[in-house]
Amino acid sequence: MTDPGSTGVTVLGLGAMGSTLAATLLDAGHDVTVWNRSPERAAGLSARGAEAAAAVGTAVAAHPLTVACLLDHASVHETLDPVIAGMRGSTLLNVTTTTPNEARELDTWAAGHGVRYLDGAIMATPSMIGTPEASILYSGSAEVFADLRPVLDRWATSTYDGEDSGLASLFDLAMLSGMYTMFAGFLHGAAMAGSAGMTATEFAARATPFLSAMTFAFAHDAAVVDGGDYTVAGQQSLDFSDLSHIVRASEEQGVAPVPVAAVQELISKQIAQGYGAEGFARIYESLRTDRTDRTDRTDGTDGTDRVETLR
Amino acid sequence: MTDPGSTGVTVLGLGAMGSTLAATLLDAGHDVTVWNRSPERAAGLSARGAEAAAAVGTAVAAHPLTVACLLDHASVHETLDPVIAGMRGSTLLNVTTTTPNEARELDTWAAGHGVRYLDGAIMATPSMIGTPEASILYSGSAEVFADLRPVLDRWATSTYDGEDSGLASLFDLAMLSGMYTMFAGFLHGAAMAGSAGMTATEFAARATPFLSAMTFAFAHDAAVVDGGDYTVAGQQSLDFSDLSHIVRASEEQGVAPVPVAAVQELISKQIAQGYGAEGFARIYESLRTDRTDRTDRTDGTDGTDRVETLR
Repeated sequence: MTDPGSTGVTVLGLGAMGSTLAATLLDAGHDVTVWNRSPERAAGLSARGAEAAAAVGTAVAAHPLTVACLLDHASVHETLDPVIAGMRGSTLLNVTTTTPNEARELDTWAAGHGVRYLDGAIMATPSMIGTPEASILYSGSAEVFADLRPVLDRWATSTYDGEDSGLASLFDLAMLSGMYTMFAGFLHGAAMAGSAGMTATEFAARATPFLSAMTFAFAHDAAVVDGGDYTVAGQQSLDFSDLSHIVRASEEQGVAPVPVAAVQELISKQIAQGYGAEGFARIYESLRTDRTDRTDRTDGTDGTDRVETLR
Repeated sequence: MTDPGSTGVTVLGLGAMGSTLAATLLDAGHDVTVWNRSPERAAGLSARGAEAAAAVGTAVAAHPLTVACLLDHASVHETLDPVIAGMRGSTLLNVTTTTPNEARELDTWAAGHGVRYLDGAIMATPSMIGTPEASILYSGSAEVFADLRPVLDRWATSTYDGEDSGLASLFDLAMLSGMYTMFAGFLHGAAMAGSAGMTATEFAARATPFLSAMTFAFAHDAAVVDGGDYTVAGQQSLDFSDLSHIVRASEEQGVAPVPVAAVQELISKQIAQGYGAEGFARIYESLRTDRTDRTDRTDGTDGTDRVETLR
């Protein structure tokens, strides 16, 4: 790949994202072969100079790099199982959304067939691809990442997360979990305000600057989690953070309290275990089921007087 | 109240917030009388010039305006029921956190005793009080709000939400629901990343700009909700937004999926009702249990081709 502009690439899967990835490479001067289960999806790209392969086997044989942008983990196997034996010596870049374990499984499976594997997780909408605002995370072989860099950087700001091929997916899903949960929290707030006649647009005008500003607190909570001492000063206590009144107000207003009730579940669990005087970040301990409860105190006190409250 | 600087104010409840409200008024030159169930909390304010009342009755009789900043709705009644009869003709500003219905109940109860009532919801930490960054919402009598304005503006940017005395609380709780849910989403993401060894601080460094930037989408979702047509272009479909893989990945990583599973519950409900091809904002309909399902379409199509997906 000494001349990145001439690297040939095969793209499997021509949904909105796969089509955009292929088009971006075409625009940059790459030879591009495309394949999609429903072949009519390839028409637009053919008109722009892509080679449309009628069969997956033809597609993956056309270039040393195959990009899979399919529906899910099962569809990657469904598509590539019949042709993987013929891909020995080539490289598979999988940007299909999978769980971390599914990415790891695909890495092992590809390696078993002599195929180099890199996993990618796209944090962007199709319209962002080709701009630095688009972010794509990669994990797996550092060597493959370095080799593919000239192609990858056509699409987005490329970040390499480590040799464990599950990491890109894990960090992607971790951020998406935060995003969707935030969206649901916003819509729950909008539904509460809406129950009194406020439009969602009015609520957004008030809530957007507030919630955006409150993201400053993430770093603070993170420092508490990393420090492992939920009694340090400057936190709001779990007792004060009890959201029962929000759950009740939501129900009284005819709004299902589902998102905030989930948060209250995490809070209640810690309060029930006797940590009510400790900080809100302690709900992290309700989430991490894979480790023993952290009850250690660094100062031997009950910590109560070092936890502050909002009001 | 022609000379706002000389308006006398009684503050009941000297937690972190009540003490700060009282101190801010003292600094601005008001006569301030304070009372707290545990009288030792008044010492610092006495040293700064406040009058510490030994009994609630003495406190509320000292000035025409009483500010209640207590633990909850029950504690407002517990504190004021014995003395409300003597408060006729005075004004009660309640900034204690309550549900909207509890605020409405207090308004009716105060009115029954000839006491003017205004409800306030404080959107600030104590350290923000006295700066324009602090926001306090008010609802109830517009006349009382106007009369108290010179006092209220000492504390924060004052917003009047309407005659229904439950509105300040409702909008406050709606925004807090969004905030706590967002915090829980961040901590869930941090726990997922943490399961692969990333520190919460590293995760915050990556997630904070991302989540802050994604708040731009609130206005977009809000416009869809207000429009009532979840098939309009530019949305990610519910089918595509299905978060089962995040729930599964979370479980595989030893992280309780509670917050994201709550979002998935809202998504699944709409998909099960046949709306999978419509936009994500449709989870609003899973939340609003107080109205009939909105199945109307504006164009008679199934809307599928007007809904875009992230990838």
